[in-house]
Amino acid sequence: MIKIPTSTLKRLPQYLEVLRQLKRAGLKEVSATKISVFADVHPTLVRKDLSFANVETSPKSGYKVSELYAAIEKLLNWNDTSTSFLVGVGHLGSALLGYQEFNQKGLSIVAGFDNDPGLIGSVVHGVPVYSALDFTAMAIKDNIQIGIITVPPESAQLIADIMVHSGIRAIWNFTPHKIIVPPNIIVEYVDMFASLAVLSRRLAERE
Amino acid sequence: MIKIPTSTLKRLPQYLEVLRQLKRAGLKEVSATKISVFADVHPTLVRKDLSFANVETSPKSGYKVSELYAAIEKLLNWNDTSTSFLVGVGHLGSALLGYQEFNQKGLSIVAGFDNDPGLIGSVVHGVPVYSALDFTAMAIKDNIQIGIITVPPESAQLIADIMVHSGIRAIWNFTPHKIIVPPNIIVEYVDMFASLAVLSRRLAERE
Repeated sequence: MIKIPTSTLKRLPQYLEVLRQLKRAGLKEVSATKISVFADVHPTLVRKDLSFANVETSPKSGYKVSELYAAIEKLLNWNDTSTSFLVGVGHLGSALLGYQEFNQKGLSIVAGFDNDPGLIGSVVHGVPVYSALDFTAMAIKDNIQIGIITVPPESAQLIADIMVHSGIRAIWNFTPHKIIVPPNIIVEYVDMFASLAVLSRRLAERE
Repeated sequence: MIKIPTSTLKRLPQYLEVLRQLKRAGLKEVSATKISVFADVHPTLVRKDLSFANVETSPKSGYKVSELYAAIEKLLNWNDTSTSFLVGVGHLGSALLGYQEFNQKGLSIVAGFDNDPGLIGSVVHGVPVYSALDFTAMAIKDNIQIGIITVPPESAQLIADIMVHSGIRAIWNFTPHKIIVPPNIIVEYVDMFASLAVLSRRLAERE
């Protein structure tokens, strides 16, 4: 499978979102230029990104919306479902357990883990919560590949270590703590605070 | 106020996190090299980024942890509190209303807005929820500068329009929908799906 550049991968969901809205509006075909306008990405980049999808495009009518949508989903492996475990069922963790959007993006969170006795044994948005002590046994048994970390930042490394030890191959880290893992483990961050930092500073700069 | 590059701003919260953990461990001084290791950022970049903080550093003992922490907080305006309104009190919106971390980062979400009659009038994690119809009057009255969007993507543009109309100057958009606003409005995205796209693809590439 060819390696797609990270910058392209990060833009693909935007194109999907544009295509989804075009589909809802009943459009069957779309040009790269139109996608470029809606996604607010330079047309040259759009063409480069979409070339990975390997779908037909005509100079006259552009891409077929449904075909391009399906091709991008396939590139991201979002047409398939990966099961995952989440550790840290606080406010953010609970929200992610209930986040329906993930199911359309190939991610199914099948269990939550916490060390709060008040949470263990409960069901949050339809997902059962277990003791963090059971993580390893359950992850190995179910051959879970993706681990989601929503604990406080100071516990992130410990949870990452447990995940690696449990056969997890990709970690989605929602804490700002940089975790150290073996090079074969994939790590991605959702860094809200990086984004908030830009927002706060730009606002202050304009005052 | 000088304009700090976006790439630097995005790294500053990581340094804060490192410094917070050093403070907890009782350390008083730290070198740029040590920060570089913990934050997993190249030492040259660390030095460049920290130069914006304008604090003393000695070749022998490095930075004073508390002083550097306070200086970075000030750069980000996180020592001050900005009030904000959030629109869309679903799973994610509710989680953000309860997210204590924001208070330490200068952000106070003082009201939530939704169009669900079951939510209007309720209090979520201590924050009152109002009708979306009341947004403009309340935002103008309280001179709110920051608006947070956690509605479904197809409603993001409408909410952004209402926010701009209500005097909001910075929009924190948690949907993947690219919103179109006047150039004087600051927009930042928390794009979970961009991050999930990279994670999903990299995992598929290794299979």
